Amino acid sequence: MKRINVWCFIVTLVIGCFFLNSSGIAQQLPPPDAVAIDKLGFMTGFPPPADKVVSSKNSSKYPQLRWSLQHIRELGTTKNIRRGSGQISELPKAERNLDNFVFEDEKGQKITISEWQKKTYTDALVVLHKGKLVYERYYNQGAEETPHILFSVTKSFTGLLAAQMVRDGKLDPDALVTKYVPELAESAWGDMKVRDVLDMTGAVRFREVYTDPSTEIFAYNYAMGLMLPPPTYKGPLTICEFLKSLKKEGEHGAGFVYRTVHSDVLGWILSRITGQHFADIMSERIWQRLGMEEDAYIMVDAVGTPLQGSGLCATARDLARFAEMMRRDGEWNGQRIFDKEVIDGIRKGGDREKFKTSGMKFRAGYSYHNQWWILHNADGAYEASGVHGNMIHINPAAEMVVVKLSSHPIAGAGFTHPMTLKAWEALAQAVRK
Amino acid sequence: MKRINVWCFIVTLVIGCFFLNSSGIAQQLPPPDAVAIDKLGFMTGFPPPADKVVSSKNSSKYPQLRWSLQHIRELGTTKNIRRGSGQISELPKAERNLDNFVFEDEKGQKITISEWQKKTYTDALVVLHKGKLVYERYYNQGAEETPHILFSVTKSFTGLLAAQMVRDGKLDPDALVTKYVPELAESAWGDMKVRDVLDMTGAVRFREVYTDPSTEIFAYNYAMGLMLPPPTYKGPLTICEFLKSLKKEGEHGAGFVYRTVHSDVLGWILSRITGQHFADIMSERIWQRLGMEEDAYIMVDAVGTPLQGSGLCATARDLARFAEMMRRDGEWNGQRIFDKEVIDGIRKGGDREKFKTSGMKFRAGYSYHNQWWILHNADGAYEASGVHGNMIHINPAAEMVVVKLSSHPIAGAGFTHPMTLKAWEALAQAVRK
Repeated sequence: MKRINVWCFIVTLVIGCFFLNSSGIAQQLPPPDAVAIDKLGFMTGFPPPADKVVSSKNSSKYPQLRWSLQHIRELGTTKNIRRGSGQISELPKAERNLDNFVFEDEKGQKITISEWQKKTYTDALVVLHKGKLVYERYYNQGAEETPHILFSVTKSFTGLLAAQMVRDGKLDPDALVTKYVPELAESAWGDMKVRDVLDMTGAVRFREVYTDPSTEIFAYNYAMGLMLPPPTYKGPLTICEFLKSLKKEGEHGAGFVYRTVHSDVLGWILSRITGQHFADIMSERIWQRLGMEEDAYIMVDAVGTPLQGSGLCATARDLARFAEMMRRDGEWNGQRIFDKEVIDGIRKGGDREKFKTSGMKFRAGYSYHNQWWILHNADGAYEASGVHGNMIHINPAAEMVVVKLSSHPIAGAGFTHPMTLKAWEALAQAVRK
Repeated sequence: MKRINVWCFIVTLVIGCFFLNSSGIAQQLPPPDAVAIDKLGFMTGFPPPADKVVSSKNSSKYPQLRWSLQHIRELGTTKNIRRGSGQISELPKAERNLDNFVFEDEKGQKITISEWQKKTYTDALVVLHKGKLVYERYYNQGAEETPHILFSVTKSFTGLLAAQMVRDGKLDPDALVTKYVPELAESAWGDMKVRDVLDMTGAVRFREVYTDPSTEIFAYNYAMGLMLPPPTYKGPLTICEFLKSLKKEGEHGAGFVYRTVHSDVLGWILSRITGQHFADIMSERIWQRLGMEEDAYIMVDAVGTPLQGSGLCATARDLARFAEMMRRDGEWNGQRIFDKEVIDGIRKGGDREKFKTSGMKFRAGYSYHNQWWILHNADGAYEASGVHGNMIHINPAAEMVVVKLSSHPIAGAGFTHPMTLKAWEALAQAVRK
């Protein structure tokens, strides 16, 4: 497996939500056109010249990540999520050019939908309104057929599948995690309930001190195969072994603390219950049933365990189909994919008081439930979100879903989220017109 | 990238044609049913128990290779060969059960088509007659939708594409290789003509002494990313750098010597001429045009260079479509894919005298031309062939094509080829009835 050695990628995969109070940085970033793949010339030529190579050694660095987020299969081990051999479900078109639709950003400055996409380093944007494709844009060599890594959007698929299992009586949210994964008995999950995994209210010691290789973030990256451990390292080398090594710190259920490792545990539980790999669950229950255009795929560790909280790669259009199925209360072309009650449960959200412990000021008023972010706004919007600006946003009141795939230089959502919140409102306003 | 540390895989990828005079071994091999993936329990459980893990450390060992040959994406870096979003071209069915068709093997003993498949550790077998699917079998978790590594069958795709470029006047077989790849000036290819690359009659020093890490086979495997080099290693770490390091030994054009590195050079030339990656050439010129059922993919090195002589993975059905297009002189559903003259050129074959230098007694009478094996038999048959029993066999007189994907414990074709030659004849006889 390619080893990714860089700080940035660690932050990218794991944190995903730290707040960057960095208005000064905005001016320092080059405009996205200047760092589009074709301008940079990455991976062109046979072989590419040394300074144009994107490999395991630099794929997580900026600007190389502008290429790598659309080329994950070329950088590491993956497992396919097959679309099957069925018909593609056409997305009926009702195209409208929203490029120049003007709105006020978080600072009250006028900005267009087009400018927002550029400022947030968008690779793909797809907007459906009432199930019709109204607006679709690609940048930076993004294309209809190109799978893009979704980072923590992955978690929301895991959470949705788990919520359906709860509904089906196959997963008990009040049971201990160890009912399903006894191997975790000695870990932080030893006395934790499934509910605290679903909502990330379990108390796990997980330190991210990038100057201290004894903190958990290092072993996590070694275990995922994203960093090469030093020769002296004797710790876990797979995701499951790593999870077993984590300890409790604090009180379960006290408050929301965003930890990707909970998604890994949730995925472990899912596979135990179903006897299936996440890739196969995704293919059978979602990808084959929604008439997707392209196969998706998931990053895997050295023993095939999926990167359940960060490793999913898919196209914007296929994600739009998925989002539209969510908006239609779990139904797709006359087929029931998920129960309405499951979708309703996600939309209803979680405990907003407990969410406050997250310290995410840019997500004020949100809650996190079943691995989804709920805005608790007037439109009843909810979303899946990953670092570098990868999002699925569902606005039931506006009958709109939006998929945004990006490769922003800065991983943390805090940097662009305030502007994107305004853009969601603007898009909802635009499609309603 | 996953590093594969085992002798067997080196032999597997590179040699592909050594003769194993090993009748005694046949009896020692366990029957294939006993070493089918499900029986072995490889990669089952979440996570799989340690003794059931197939990873980079053992994926090339037998019996682990029975799993790994169908799971290459999970073991290393790859690039997708997209089928596009067009209709699948249906394979009309005229199924016949040939399981119990009896023939005489190379020792004159009676054997059935079914027994032959088992004895040669078949994973998938597809037979088309007059374009109709007459016989299709899967074993060892092989399935219609499962891409399987083809090893040196890869070369024949490279050769076919190159032959079309010759026909199109874009590639001059009488030109020096350095016309297209000047970087090879100081290497074995410095004074070699393209024709000697196409037919593997160029003289390259390439030693495979598995007890001597200074022989070329080691650096080749480091360069492909299949073996982790020792810390003291200072040699090439990419395929292109490795090719540049190889020296001439002998006289170009003197005789056929099977060397995978020629296929790497041919691929380099193709990409230089087209400005495209092999995966994209394959997608645009073949996969998207034949209505394939599944995406294919190719293994790539640390800088994205394809393993042009060994790394292609595809399904048996899609390979059958490809073979049928060849049998139809390059035409598919009214579209011209390759020129008839290109296919004719391959069928006509190469220099049978020069082939004799190969020492391949099990391929007596063959020639090798444009990276295809020509049988020079009464039926005008020709084939693509990779280690562990992976083959595309085209019999124009019988109007039959056969795809056989296998995971035989022994890499070398010599071990099973004599029996398979008899099976080809039997199948041709059976479908003609």
